[in-house]
Amino acid sequence: MTGMAAAAPGWLAVAGLGPGGAGLVTPEVSAALAGATDIVGYAPYVARVPARAGLVLHASDNRVELERARHALSLAAAGRRVVVVSSGDPGVFAMASALFEALEAGPPDWAGLDIRILPGITAMLAAAAAAGAPLGHDFCAINLSDNLKPFDLVLKRIRLAVEGDFAMAFYNPRSRARAAQFAQVLDLLRESCAPGRLVIFARAVSTPDEDIRITTLADARPDMADMRTVVLVGSSRTRRAGRFAYTPRSA
Amino acid sequence: MTGMAAAAPGWLAVAGLGPGGAGLVTPEVSAALAGATDIVGYAPYVARVPARAGLVLHASDNRVELERARHALSLAAAGRRVVVVSSGDPGVFAMASALFEALEAGPPDWAGLDIRILPGITAMLAAAAAAGAPLGHDFCAINLSDNLKPFDLVLKRIRLAVEGDFAMAFYNPRSRARAAQFAQVLDLLRESCAPGRLVIFARAVSTPDEDIRITTLADARPDMADMRTVVLVGSSRTRRAGRFAYTPRSA
Repeated sequence: MTGMAAAAPGWLAVAGLGPGGAGLVTPEVSAALAGATDIVGYAPYVARVPARAGLVLHASDNRVELERARHALSLAAAGRRVVVVSSGDPGVFAMASALFEALEAGPPDWAGLDIRILPGITAMLAAAAAAGAPLGHDFCAINLSDNLKPFDLVLKRIRLAVEGDFAMAFYNPRSRARAAQFAQVLDLLRESCAPGRLVIFARAVSTPDEDIRITTLADARPDMADMRTVVLVGSSRTRRAGRFAYTPRSA
Repeated sequence: MTGMAAAAPGWLAVAGLGPGGAGLVTPEVSAALAGATDIVGYAPYVARVPARAGLVLHASDNRVELERARHALSLAAAGRRVVVVSSGDPGVFAMASALFEALEAGPPDWAGLDIRILPGITAMLAAAAAAGAPLGHDFCAINLSDNLKPFDLVLKRIRLAVEGDFAMAFYNPRSRARAAQFAQVLDLLRESCAPGRLVIFARAVSTPDEDIRITTLADARPDMADMRTVVLVGSSRTRRAGRFAYTPRSA
C-alpha cells in the first residue's frame, strides 16, 4: 500500500428537506448536505440544495426512484459521500423505501454500507400546523396515487378510516392522469360523513405560494387540489376555532 | 398617551422541539425561542430550551395542558412573546389541540392574538428513520392512552387499521397506571396478524439513551415499551433489509 492512501469510506444519507421553507430544514440535514460529495434526487429537490464548489449534482426525472436509488448506492460503494434528497420526510411516500428496495436487490457488499435516514418535516404536519391542529388526535396518512397499488385499496382504506373516525391526510390527491379519482374520494366521504366535516386543502406549504383553505365536505371540489396539495380531512370532532381548525384531544 | 409608548404586540407560538436531539430542532423553532420573552411547558421540555438572561421559564407538571395553555394565552394577551414547547410535533398528541381548546373557552379578545403552530419532527418519524422506513406506505398514528378516550375505541381503531393493512405507530403505549392495556393490544394484534409481523420498539430516539429494537409480533413483550417508547407495527408487507425494516411502496 506504499504511497497509496486508504480510500475514505463512503456513506449514504436519505434526507428530508421538509416541505419547502428553509426554516423547516433540520440542522442534521444541513450538516449532511454540507459534508456530501454528491446529491442525488428528483430535479426540483436537488435544486433546493445550496450550491457549493465541487458538489456534484445528479438530478433525475420523477418516477425513476429505483434507478436513482441504485445510482446513489453505487456511488456510496465507490467511496462517495452521497445525500439522496426527498421533499418532506424521506420515510413518508418518498425515497427511503425505494432505497431499501434497491439495497435488497443489489450486490451483497451494499449491505455493509453506512446508510442513514434523516427525518424531515412531512407535508401533512406542516399543513396541519398552518391550519391549526386538525391531526391533533388519531389519524391516518394515505397516498391516493394508484401508481403502485390498486385504487380499490385506497377506497377501502378511506372507508375503514372513516369507520374508525380517524382524521386523514391524503398525499398525491390528484394528477392530470387521474383527475376523476379524487372526485370519487370526495363522493365516498360524502356518503359516510356529515356535510359539515372539515376539509383542508394545503398547497405549497411553507413556500411563497402557500395557500391554506379550510372548507367543508359540502363545499369541497376536486379542483381545489393539485399536485402540490396535501388534503387533510378532519374526524367527526374536528372543528373551527376562529381562523383555525383543530381536533380536540378527547375523541 | 403622552410619554407612554404603545405596548409591543404579544405573540404565541406552539413549537415542536423534536424527539430530543439538537440536530432535529428546526431553524424556525430556534428562531422563535430566540425571540421569546417567556417559555411555557412541561418541565422536561422547558429544560431543553437554551438558557438566556431575561428569558422567563414557566415549567409545569404533566397533565395540566389546559391550565398551561390558558396561562400562555394570557401572557401573550398581556404583550409577552410566548413559546409553548412540546416534544416532537405540537400537533401530534401534544400541546396544539389543548391551546385551541383553551382559546375557544377563553375571553373573546384572545381570538385576535398572533398565534402560530411551528411543526417539529414527531417521534414516529424519527423512530421510523432510525429503523429504516417502516412507515413507507399508508399508516395510522394512534395514541394508546385512555386518559381522554375509552380504551375500547383504541382497540376498535387498531382492529380497523389491521383490516386495512396499514402500518401503525403507537404513542404512549404504556404507563405504570395501565400496564395491562398494552399487553391487550399485543394480544389483539396476535389474533389477526402473522407471528412474523415486524414490531419496532423505539425508545428515546435521537437522545444518548436511544434504543431501537426490531422484533416480531411472536417475540414482542409488553415490557419492551415504557413511557419513552414509540411502537411501530409494520403492515403485512413490511420486511427486513439487513439491519433495517421497511415497507415497500407497492402495498
